[in-house]
Amino acid sequence: MNKGKERQIPPSVVRRLTRYLAILQELRSRRTPWVSSSDLADWLGLTSSTVRQDLTHVNFRGISRKGYDVEGLAATLAKTLGADTTWSVAVVGAGNLGRALALHEEFARRGFHIKGVFDSDPAKIGRRIGSFRVMDALTLPRFVHEKKIDIGIIAVPSQAAQQVADLLIAGRIRGLLNLTQTHIIAPKKVPIVATRIVSSLQELAHLIKRRHSL
Amino acid sequence: MNKGKERQIPPSVVRRLTRYLAILQELRSRRTPWVSSSDLADWLGLTSSTVRQDLTHVNFRGISRKGYDVEGLAATLAKTLGADTTWSVAVVGAGNLGRALALHEEFARRGFHIKGVFDSDPAKIGRRIGSFRVMDALTLPRFVHEKKIDIGIIAVPSQAAQQVADLLIAGRIRGLLNLTQTHIIAPKKVPIVATRIVSSLQELAHLIKRRHSL
Repeated sequence: MNKGKERQIPPSVVRRLTRYLAILQELRSRRTPWVSSSDLADWLGLTSSTVRQDLTHVNFRGISRKGYDVEGLAATLAKTLGADTTWSVAVVGAGNLGRALALHEEFARRGFHIKGVFDSDPAKIGRRIGSFRVMDALTLPRFVHEKKIDIGIIAVPSQAAQQVADLLIAGRIRGLLNLTQTHIIAPKKVPIVATRIVSSLQELAHLIKRRHSL
Repeated sequence: MNKGKERQIPPSVVRRLTRYLAILQELRSRRTPWVSSSDLADWLGLTSSTVRQDLTHVNFRGISRKGYDVEGLAATLAKTLGADTTWSVAVVGAGNLGRALALHEEFARRGFHIKGVFDSDPAKIGRRIGSFRVMDALTLPRFVHEKKIDIGIIAVPSQAAQQVADLLIAGRIRGLLNLTQTHIIAPKKVPIVATRIVSSLQELAHLIKRRHSL
């Protein structure tokens, strides 16, 4: 495997690879054997040269005149994206968003297994969310360390985000998904991906304004 | 206002502008009058030349030796991003994620006002979520048209996403936020922004693998 090359995949390409994988998994479940770069491009609103260029970043040889081998490309992408491994996840924040995440079945199907839900609000600690009992956020460092938790999802109010991140980092978390509006500071070895629904709405508002010259 | 220039802001820059705005709003609430491009860069893990380059896309003149005028830059960014207007929103999907969104207070604070929550499941229609009563998804075209809804948030299972988008489009929705894994097809005049928490987890898994050479 060409590890050196894989290390350098730009973030924007990685983001598109996750979308190709989602489509390939759908095609696989419909037993479609082949897919062309132009089909992938059409589905995602991209050009086929972008798709072909992106796929040069993964080591895949199953290309024929019929297109890409769906099964093989899905497996290669899954490997590149770490979707062939299972990951242990802790959700911090037992508010509405945290509850939604803890009860979201898609995570486990994609290999992200939630092992615990945490909050610092005494009124929430001890409550049930599905099969989880909400634990005290102060026990995070020990829990993360002992249970070898890979990923912490931060779904707390913005002002508590850094404090929660520090607790997860103290337990040697390997990566953070930040769902708050706040920027979180972490050591270089702990990668952070931010998903902000409010920012997405602002991005959309900008596109609507532009489209309608408001 | 230089509309022509504003029209061409690349999506990746727009995404960063939403993050600058979030930080500026935080600084404003702490009454910090000035901020430098290198401070903004440090907070977001960017280079200060990226920040300066990004900010050339908005028409802002409040720059001095002390840095950018926080109040003024926040106002300019809010205008560019449509965050100075209020937007009407319909949430489709009354499952865990839809519930979380409908109860999320940050939306209204940022100018996104939820006007209705919809589902197609007879068991969910009529139920209360906060101050909302879940409405039948089939009434979406009329509701969107009559209430002049700007944005539809799609928080249904993936297989229902396109059908829901079609109902929103039939009511002349202006933009869609797609929270499902599926790619949605819409007329060119209806912009779509996709936020996929599972994709973000996959992106994070890739970064962890790369960091640890797994």
